[in-house]
Amino acid sequence: MKTAIVCIGDELLNGFTIDGNSSWIAKKILPYNLDVNLIINLKDSVEDIKEKIDHLIKSDYSYIFFTGGLGPTHDDVTKTAFLEYFKSDLFLYKPHYEKINNYFKNKKLKINLSHLKSQSEILSNSKPLNNSSGTALGMALKFKNIQIFILPGVPFEMKNMFEKEIIPNYISVNNSYTQNNLTLLTSGISESRLYDMLEKYISDNSDTKFSFLPSFKGVKIRLEVNKNNVKYIDTVKNDLYNKIGSYIYGYDEDSIEEVIANYLFDRNLSISIAESCTGGIISSKLTDVPGSSKFFKGSIIAYSNDIKENLLSISSDLLLQKGAVSSEVALSMARKVSEKFETDIGVSTTGISGPSGGSDSKPIGLVYVAVVFKDIEIVKKFNLYPERKIHREVTSHVALNMLRKLFL
Amino acid sequence: MKTAIVCIGDELLNGFTIDGNSSWIAKKILPYNLDVNLIINLKDSVEDIKEKIDHLIKSDYSYIFFTGGLGPTHDDVTKTAFLEYFKSDLFLYKPHYEKINNYFKNKKLKINLSHLKSQSEILSNSKPLNNSSGTALGMALKFKNIQIFILPGVPFEMKNMFEKEIIPNYISVNNSYTQNNLTLLTSGISESRLYDMLEKYISDNSDTKFSFLPSFKGVKIRLEVNKNNVKYIDTVKNDLYNKIGSYIYGYDEDSIEEVIANYLFDRNLSISIAESCTGGIISSKLTDVPGSSKFFKGSIIAYSNDIKENLLSISSDLLLQKGAVSSEVALSMARKVSEKFETDIGVSTTGISGPSGGSDSKPIGLVYVAVVFKDIEIVKKFNLYPERKIHREVTSHVALNMLRKLFL
Repeated sequence: MKTAIVCIGDELLNGFTIDGNSSWIAKKILPYNLDVNLIINLKDSVEDIKEKIDHLIKSDYSYIFFTGGLGPTHDDVTKTAFLEYFKSDLFLYKPHYEKINNYFKNKKLKINLSHLKSQSEILSNSKPLNNSSGTALGMALKFKNIQIFILPGVPFEMKNMFEKEIIPNYISVNNSYTQNNLTLLTSGISESRLYDMLEKYISDNSDTKFSFLPSFKGVKIRLEVNKNNVKYIDTVKNDLYNKIGSYIYGYDEDSIEEVIANYLFDRNLSISIAESCTGGIISSKLTDVPGSSKFFKGSIIAYSNDIKENLLSISSDLLLQKGAVSSEVALSMARKVSEKFETDIGVSTTGISGPSGGSDSKPIGLVYVAVVFKDIEIVKKFNLYPERKIHREVTSHVALNMLRKLFL
Repeated sequence: MKTAIVCIGDELLNGFTIDGNSSWIAKKILPYNLDVNLIINLKDSVEDIKEKIDHLIKSDYSYIFFTGGLGPTHDDVTKTAFLEYFKSDLFLYKPHYEKINNYFKNKKLKINLSHLKSQSEILSNSKPLNNSSGTALGMALKFKNIQIFILPGVPFEMKNMFEKEIIPNYISVNNSYTQNNLTLLTSGISESRLYDMLEKYISDNSDTKFSFLPSFKGVKIRLEVNKNNVKYIDTVKNDLYNKIGSYIYGYDEDSIEEVIANYLFDRNLSISIAESCTGGIISSKLTDVPGSSKFFKGSIIAYSNDIKENLLSISSDLLLQKGAVSSEVALSMARKVSEKFETDIGVSTTGISGPSGGSDSKPIGLVYVAVVFKDIEIVKKFNLYPERKIHREVTSHVALNMLRKLFL
């Protein structure tokens, strides 16, 4: 089913906002065999939109999704373009008009009645798509054999409309659901090393498509099997697990902090963290997980040496002799925080994220990460990319990966 | 100067990655009067790419930017599509070949010579664009009056090539630089209230284009003045400052944490934070600012009541009587953290981010934020959106905004 997505809005073409809608839609419809061949971003221009409607309708698309330009202001011209192209009329969809009218009345909000009316009008050749989180109605229309959808551009509204109106009423009824892809999330190994380990397997399995997406947090491997043999996805998953399993921390939308949260929760273990250069990132990631209060007790962010000494009780001699960025101090920080917070596990980071603070013996990028858990005491030294934001993010991820490996 | 951007890669059309390149390019070239009318995402398909080259070349574009599909694997077919379309030849650009060959030899990395060769080959009708951070050469070619660029898709490589090769050699030499837009960053006020305050001004200034972009962190207002009257941007900026100045925390790429960092640095003030529900987010934002060790001493993340009592010395009676989520505990946390860390300013958060932990009297979404600075003690209660991630982010932003307002 050849599919196109068109996102409309000046803000997409002047760099003010990134188009996240089309990627979201593409991912959502892929399992229903709607294959997105084209994504387009257009300005709020009646002529541009009409030209594109014409071009797309004359190509062999089965589904076309439009988002954006349905608001009440003069910038929003998507509906006008469709009106002119189809020489259609407007039709006031009263149930919606009454619904939003009542909403504003109940909230005692100032109402612009002409706005409310225009937001409730749809093309006479279309069916309404309810908007559960905004004022603009969406529209579904069939032209020849092409199913066209016109949706609001506000991501929250668009996504709700898509999940509540479009998927159940238009997509799932006409197309079977076949999830034929899986993303493996790896950490602690580079793309080229992964590729070396998998090169032969990939060339031996040419029916399966492999894509690698490296980032500072690890490499994602996306695999896509033939739609006629979806069960093969489990075979590939198992094969890859046997080859690179220790690097795989999860699948699809998993996060490494959720994986760790589950480990800790299942084993009834508690954790505390002493963060220096990461300044709270590790703690904020772990507490992002719902229910984290069951295993996370707290942290000390010891940014200055005073605080390391006074609040974490790191010996001033040690700080003086070895320096704050040292394996000894890292280890002491992890031990002390777990003592003070009375937790099973203590984690620490201390390093130089830059842009200043480096020296010949301790350059920017140097960092020590320690994990302490019962008899296990691990401290590791890394020289990471010497750019502040990246350094802090990668250090945090490295610490989480060390935590994860405790339970392998 | 009518401009199109085409980003190529299967991963953009199956929802595996969001296209951030086109937005970045659009923003970069806007001041040079390159007006992006069209953004397209295409699959790694020779036929699709050829069809689009043909279509775009026959339209009246002055500049067309292509990114993606220049890598060494069989998926990367952008060069093939151009070769076929222009019936061109390949040309080995030896300086690049030798450069990357030497790089791999020096690093003692395994070399696939055919890959290196293909990465150093360009269309014979093009000029090379050096890649300072990857292996694939870019290409610049002129066809009739259209300037075409073919760039790698890896964001880091593309951006470096764009800034080092394209802007200085092709864009800035042919186009004058006119920055005619400005983004005002506001916090602590809703989009509709802002719009009410500015409605008359906006309609009186119809030559200036105003766009509003609300998010959970505040509302961005983008203004764009006529290119023939760029100085008017200062007039509008001043006018808006007079109307909504107390809500404006910065412009364009500023962040609220940088603004606060500058306030603290200029006044030689130190800060510490006691975070409960925000779990480290505020600390991580402040320490994201380079040089933050000059004002940030540290934090205690007191997630459990034990820790609030034992490490922050919050009275157990107070915790029992008022509950951890109360204005009294918030205030005590801010006071105690500034005492323990010996800082001028103390900040605290305590709230219920959900998904569990709410009650009738203290529902999910409730949060108290306190700021203590010399004689000033402020504690505020908020009922924020009861979704965990959003609640934590908004609470952090609210705390930063309260900090900012200390210095107005």
